[in-house]
Amino acid sequence: MFPTISEEDEGADKDGNGRRAVLILDQTRLPARAEQVRLTTLEEAAHAIRSMQVRGAPLIGATAAYGVALGLSATADDATLGHVLDTLAATRPTAVNLHWALARMRRVLAPLAPDRRRAAAWREARAIAAEDAAANAAIGRHGLALLEPLIRRRGRIDLMTHCNAGWLATVAHGTALAPIHAAHAAGLPVHVWVSETRPRNQGWLTAWELRQAGIAHTLIADNAAGLLMMQGKVDLLIVGADRIAANGDTANKIGTYLKALAARAHGIPFYVAAPASTIDFSCPSGADIPIEERAAAELAASLDSPAANPAFDITPAGLISGIITESGIHAPDALRTSSEQGA
Amino acid sequence: MFPTISEEDEGADKDGNGRRAVLILDQTRLPARAEQVRLTTLEEAAHAIRSMQVRGAPLIGATAAYGVALGLSATADDATLGHVLDTLAATRPTAVNLHWALARMRRVLAPLAPDRRRAAAWREARAIAAEDAAANAAIGRHGLALLEPLIRRRGRIDLMTHCNAGWLATVAHGTALAPIHAAHAAGLPVHVWVSETRPRNQGWLTAWELRQAGIAHTLIADNAAGLLMMQGKVDLLIVGADRIAANGDTANKIGTYLKALAARAHGIPFYVAAPASTIDFSCPSGADIPIEERAAAELAASLDSPAANPAFDITPAGLISGIITESGIHAPDALRTSSEQGA
Repeated sequence: MFPTISEEDEGADKDGNGRRAVLILDQTRLPARAEQVRLTTLEEAAHAIRSMQVRGAPLIGATAAYGVALGLSATADDATLGHVLDTLAATRPTAVNLHWALARMRRVLAPLAPDRRRAAAWREARAIAAEDAAANAAIGRHGLALLEPLIRRRGRIDLMTHCNAGWLATVAHGTALAPIHAAHAAGLPVHVWVSETRPRNQGWLTAWELRQAGIAHTLIADNAAGLLMMQGKVDLLIVGADRIAANGDTANKIGTYLKALAARAHGIPFYVAAPASTIDFSCPSGADIPIEERAAAELAASLDSPAANPAFDITPAGLISGIITESGIHAPDALRTSSEQGA
Repeated sequence: MFPTISEEDEGADKDGNGRRAVLILDQTRLPARAEQVRLTTLEEAAHAIRSMQVRGAPLIGATAAYGVALGLSATADDATLGHVLDTLAATRPTAVNLHWALARMRRVLAPLAPDRRRAAAWREARAIAAEDAAANAAIGRHGLALLEPLIRRRGRIDLMTHCNAGWLATVAHGTALAPIHAAHAAGLPVHVWVSETRPRNQGWLTAWELRQAGIAHTLIADNAAGLLMMQGKVDLLIVGADRIAANGDTANKIGTYLKALAARAHGIPFYVAAPASTIDFSCPSGADIPIEERAAAELAASLDSPAANPAFDITPAGLISGIITESGIHAPDALRTSSEQGA
């Protein structure tokens, strides 16, 4: 299977400079077809993010970093660098990993001489991608430590997730699905309830990803989540995150909040899994997180009625049992403390 | 526009007996096309219910009653009557109006001589249909009395519903939408948030119905309901019901429960509107209501993963502000008392 994102050496240009492209797995084609798209320009990288050829907060961050590298000419002055960063920042508003990655690129590149920026951008993008993969592997380990005793006690576990926060949403391993992949790899019996995740149906990506991995799962309509919890068929929920505010309020794919409310009503643990790059300490609470409104056409190809299509919602910290990051499992109201302890 | 269900005189058969057919609006074609289907046999009536050419608890009840009339020959012995009733009872398990209508038909027809049953069946089906229309008109009046002061105070109202509990779900007027149609007819400004209602997308029927009536509305993914309530964009919810247990627990289209939980979290009134025929006093609580599991293929034409497709969920009485029936607005935990008072 293709990785979600990778580099490709395209040889040297006429000036002898190495040319590189970025290959992405086109997620708008999945699960019907697994096809790669070659990104060679800033505009192609921005389009890939905007059109959701790449999606998932961590993968958006890595793609934006590579987009900076693609957007810089051999000599990139401050205006060029600013234009590149601004173009990528404007693609999608909610996932903070995008802005986190771009801020990091700016911090590294701005002090450099213009002719050193492009090579540094490739190095830094590569580092961001490698760190994402490592962070998610650690999330998998911490999540496995949470799941394993539950599974051993019950003999099996029925998990529920939302959207796709699997390896498809990241550079590798996934966030919410990382502990599930880890449990399966450890030979523990796991079953996952997979919501369609209307309107973009990223649940189909999760079903596809779990099918590839041989992990038992059942597809459901988003609407069915409450009944399944009422019927005692869900032991624990794990979802990803697009932005976590300083107080633990979490923006994630629209519909997450409804699942969190139902989990609370039935006393079912509800976990968020995300790399620390998803935490936005500059955002005091969920009320400060911008919610992307996407095209009404995502609801249906043709619409005779007006439509609204917010892409994310906010789950208040009080509904979250814990936030699984690469540094461990944190209480949602103790993120700053945890991070300071980790620092 | 065609009515949801109506009779058609087909002249006399060779014995001089009047032949009648039942015309239904085929709701599996809506909103793309408004087409009628002619039902002339028991099997066609059963198929219409099973395949959801007619849907909505009250309309299912009326169609079942007419199905009995279609199924009876000029001389219908007890075995024939029993077969007809059993065939229709087996079509769909959750909506109690089906069983209520069939029990009423049995009560009226069983004591009659075999050669008097068919004519009596047509008369009784006609009465059931007329009573449904009258009950829903009364629901509209009671609901309007609830809405009008709210609208006058706020200057407008943003309502949310789920699935389609409009005139399409009934013989006329609708249940949950009856107060909304009544408010619009009274010149009061109303806006309705319409959820798609996956997997069958009955929200599209609601959008179509509201569009025909010129009522302002916005289509949303089911997943968006929680965010809209959190954002203060919903003043009140009204949904229909497929079966209301004696304690007020309410079975309605899958996804209703998630909306009720979110309404409670944000202090938003949550009403159920249904004719008294939807109340099943033989069912102590929601745990006793059978939940129909429909074909996985409703989720998608082709599925590589296993799927579950429960068609209804249970909203506990404690989440319901009131139940609007033809006799007024009742506290969900006082249904028996209210009904006894009404008797």
